[in-house]
Amino acid sequence: MEYPQENFAATKFAPGSFWARRREVVRAQTLRHQLQMLKKTGRYDAFKLRWHPSYSIPPTVYPIPNHQFWDSDVAKWIEGACYLLMDSPDAEIEEAVKELVEMIKGAQHPDGYLNIHYSVVEPGKRFTNLRDMHELYNAGHLIEAALAHHRYFENVEMLSPILKYVDLLATTFGDQEGQIPGYPGHPEIELALLRLYKVSANQKHLQLAQFFIEERGNPKGSKNQRHYYDDEAEARGESEHDLPMYYPAARSYWYQQAHVPIIDQETIEGHSVRAMYLLTAVADLIRIREPDSQTGIKFLPAIERLWSNMVEKKSYVTGGIGAMKQWEGFGIDYFLPHGTDEGGCYAETCAAIGVMMLAERMLQIKLDSHYADIMELCLYNSVLTGMSLDGKAFTYVNQLASSDQDISQRHEWFECACCPPNVTRTLGFLGGYLWSHTVKDQTAIVNVHLYSSATLNFKTSQSTVTITQQTDWPWNGDVNFDIKIDGPPVDLQVRLRIPDWAESWNVAPSPGTLDVRDGYLFLSVEWLQAHPQFQLSCTMQPRVVRPHPLTLQPVVYITRGPIVYCVEDVDNPWEQNHFKVIALSLKETISSYKHATS
Amino acid sequence: MEYPQENFAATKFAPGSFWARRREVVRAQTLRHQLQMLKKTGRYDAFKLRWHPSYSIPPTVYPIPNHQFWDSDVAKWIEGACYLLMDSPDAEIEEAVKELVEMIKGAQHPDGYLNIHYSVVEPGKRFTNLRDMHELYNAGHLIEAALAHHRYFENVEMLSPILKYVDLLATTFGDQEGQIPGYPGHPEIELALLRLYKVSANQKHLQLAQFFIEERGNPKGSKNQRHYYDDEAEARGESEHDLPMYYPAARSYWYQQAHVPIIDQETIEGHSVRAMYLLTAVADLIRIREPDSQTGIKFLPAIERLWSNMVEKKSYVTGGIGAMKQWEGFGIDYFLPHGTDEGGCYAETCAAIGVMMLAERMLQIKLDSHYADIMELCLYNSVLTGMSLDGKAFTYVNQLASSDQDISQRHEWFECACCPPNVTRTLGFLGGYLWSHTVKDQTAIVNVHLYSSATLNFKTSQSTVTITQQTDWPWNGDVNFDIKIDGPPVDLQVRLRIPDWAESWNVAPSPGTLDVRDGYLFLSVEWLQAHPQFQLSCTMQPRVVRPHPLTLQPVVYITRGPIVYCVEDVDNPWEQNHFKVIALSLKETISSYKHATS
Repeated sequence: MEYPQENFAATKFAPGSFWARRREVVRAQTLRHQLQMLKKTGRYDAFKLRWHPSYSIPPTVYPIPNHQFWDSDVAKWIEGACYLLMDSPDAEIEEAVKELVEMIKGAQHPDGYLNIHYSVVEPGKRFTNLRDMHELYNAGHLIEAALAHHRYFENVEMLSPILKYVDLLATTFGDQEGQIPGYPGHPEIELALLRLYKVSANQKHLQLAQFFIEERGNPKGSKNQRHYYDDEAEARGESEHDLPMYYPAARSYWYQQAHVPIIDQETIEGHSVRAMYLLTAVADLIRIREPDSQTGIKFLPAIERLWSNMVEKKSYVTGGIGAMKQWEGFGIDYFLPHGTDEGGCYAETCAAIGVMMLAERMLQIKLDSHYADIMELCLYNSVLTGMSLDGKAFTYVNQLASSDQDISQRHEWFECACCPPNVTRTLGFLGGYLWSHTVKDQTAIVNVHLYSSATLNFKTSQSTVTITQQTDWPWNGDVNFDIKIDGPPVDLQVRLRIPDWAESWNVAPSPGTLDVRDGYLFLSVEWLQAHPQFQLSCTMQPRVVRPHPLTLQPVVYITRGPIVYCVEDVDNPWEQNHFKVIALSLKETISSYKHATS
Repeated sequence: MEYPQENFAATKFAPGSFWARRREVVRAQTLRHQLQMLKKTGRYDAFKLRWHPSYSIPPTVYPIPNHQFWDSDVAKWIEGACYLLMDSPDAEIEEAVKELVEMIKGAQHPDGYLNIHYSVVEPGKRFTNLRDMHELYNAGHLIEAALAHHRYFENVEMLSPILKYVDLLATTFGDQEGQIPGYPGHPEIELALLRLYKVSANQKHLQLAQFFIEERGNPKGSKNQRHYYDDEAEARGESEHDLPMYYPAARSYWYQQAHVPIIDQETIEGHSVRAMYLLTAVADLIRIREPDSQTGIKFLPAIERLWSNMVEKKSYVTGGIGAMKQWEGFGIDYFLPHGTDEGGCYAETCAAIGVMMLAERMLQIKLDSHYADIMELCLYNSVLTGMSLDGKAFTYVNQLASSDQDISQRHEWFECACCPPNVTRTLGFLGGYLWSHTVKDQTAIVNVHLYSSATLNFKTSQSTVTITQQTDWPWNGDVNFDIKIDGPPVDLQVRLRIPDWAESWNVAPSPGTLDVRDGYLFLSVEWLQAHPQFQLSCTMQPRVVRPHPLTLQPVVYITRGPIVYCVEDVDNPWEQNHFKVIALSLKETISSYKHATS
């Protein structure tokens, strides 16, 4: 059960259900659309290591070359494709994956090194700017792609070259003589190495991830007993006032969550995607080392503190994070404007995906419905919204209030195209977020985090367990469960998340005493054996939600179930000021009517 | 009547009155305190052009050396001293002024150049960084000091060397062959040159000011047909990514109001003090050239547009301006947080002084009480607050809501010490803000902008006019006027500003029909001859004022008369959150009681 990117395969969404329809759009439309975009923009062929005209264009976000992330765009698409190909074979997609893998293999240096920019544009400068460049970030996504590829194709065509690259990285980075004591400006490789470790069982992979995590922000980590990024910038001959566009001031290492070591960070700061990817890795490291290990005791308080600061003071009602545009990240506590014309609401799609990733990791450390509530909130309101109904247009910025100066619109692609393939891969392994299960001999535990018409199927030592949810979620709060065991009896426990937003809920037939722990209803082996069919009902009434008073936002939100509703121009007469001065009379009853396409 | 810095001498505040007491503190305490600070910090002796240890300290605000403004700190103190010495002689202060003037004369280069930094620290680099450095700003303050010195001492000991410097500047800058087509990053010299022109009648002074104003922001003004600052930066060998701390992005010329020519600026942007000093000069230029001249027609719409944008969308209830700390200036429309912990409220003291300056200039173009209302608002709530009761501590930042992280406090001095001597000189010539008068033969017009117990005394061709106000303003809205004419009758008109905040008002004895134009009550020659004593009464009831809804500030302000009231820790139990969550019941009547020291 360790990774949703693996256990998603045990879940089948019911055909025609809410998420099955979304995933089908991704499989049939998005993968193809994004493949075209990869081809059209030069990304597809980039691993051939020829010059592309765009390499000569000055960076839009100085000092990062626009093509710096191309490796990861391709990698995320491969990863997403490998998850979705399981739904039904697709020769064109499969062919493209194979061709890309061939090109990736062909781009590898004899020593294992693998990166488009540093092979074509700045050969000889590899690993000289970990702070700004995305070599290790790209490497992380290549690892994740290779893992998905390995899983689907059941060969090592991609994993094998990537392992060779990882070997090079493990030799290059570390605190030993001759090694570089640095760490990536954009975390990602840490969580990828930990996933890789699950498959490889290679201690070097675990150790490299842990080195990157523990060394991060060390004020005396460099060869000159300074911050590593100081040494590195000096070696590049850079003035400290030569500012990357995302730095509001010199040495803004908080942008990279590297201003101080992670364990000393009191508030969540900087680039929100980086923060989420980093903390996801930290949580995974805690899980692997165990929460009560030295590593766990060291990092758990920090990660809980940073999570709380984020959720309580730096998150939008939709679960979106990162108000500030300049550094694509967190503002000061309670600074949560609704539109860019009010000074914020960047709320990048990838950041919300990152919140889901972190929440899922946290659930494995501690089964607490708070994490699943946030995960569900992000899924419906900040991630799902990142893709159009036809699966061919995407958001990067997710304002809650569009303005005439900066109208919220989806786009078919972006120069920095992290978000579109991130949505693809997230929906690809979405089943892995629904529930987690552990099996030991004839004993099994299933924790149900999200509700959707779907079936979970897994084996115990002698039997096969099939659990089906049937529901109209998110439009209706009734969920019918059906448990089938094929073979000898299984000691099965099921724990159901009780959503925080449910004003009331019940289970039928009644289990008598309700054993609710940290927001999960624990259903016992005995009760489940007596009641293999049961229903969870959560009331879904329209609710008026207010932001924290210190956000100074004089608004209310209308929510129902997991969904935060939105007033849109497309449904209403054009508003010059985009609804800024519209008032809602709370004397009226807010009623809902059945959704047409439930 | 052209300049309040001149006509203030016609006004005497009644001893013991509100402003007389404040000015007396400045004369007796502040001048002396600030003289000590000038001496203690090295500024006093800096014109001796010896090395000071602080010159080796890296800039706090890169790339501006910390001592860059020292010339102006000294100049503003001299200017303030010369205004206040008129109240009563003070040998120590007078001696210091004389010694400083001797040192300034001694620091002048043979060609007239005069600047501490470029004489001692970077000789040979004069005029190579108009964008960031403050040579011309310093020159402007030296001009203003020389004018005040000339006025008080009635000699040219200071004015003469300064005129020589101005000659050098007039030769150096301009659009002729061999001249530098640049303009100062920090406006000030423009308004100083226009004041100087009044005394010198030298067309070169007017023309240089007009060149600086008209050339500003020219996208093709440089020798290479680019923005002048682009040429200049290239000549310095600077990367465009070598960012001054106040630039959030490369080429943020809006910081200096130089992103486009002034006439094309749609909204008020950037550093708020720079904006105010610049627009004050523009307004003065319009006045000098006449509003219906080519220059007037060109600039008046821009200045009115920028004023409106500022007052309607970028000002605090106190008249303070400039929410943003990084560039000490304006944020986006309606972005007006109350504390730095909420993302803003820098509201620099000098900026509010600048609003007063601009408002006073605008009143001379168009007599409209709106300008005087804002001028009064700033004086009581953003300028007066900049100095402690004992006259020895000052504010730079003026938060409306202090926080535990950043407690509002006054300080005896600042590294960048623009505000303290600016308050000194403003209170020095405060009488000039009260009223303006014009005289022609035996005809005179007096426009009364502010109310205070004071006497205005001026001569017509054959008579002397004395107008006395007697009032407890700002605590009481009754003002008794008494007009005395010594000599043959004068055709005197008086116009009284009716404050916007006065819910009701009246004049006794009643003038019958009230001739109110743009917020000023016009009292005719005939009526005044019949009623040389009369009373204006403005109601001063506590009022609840709300900010514009689009500021998203869920607060109310309690005001009474011109004063915005404040809840302070010093009067109340310590509040952990500095009153953030305190609510005011508006069902209660807000009552006021007589001020103890009225």
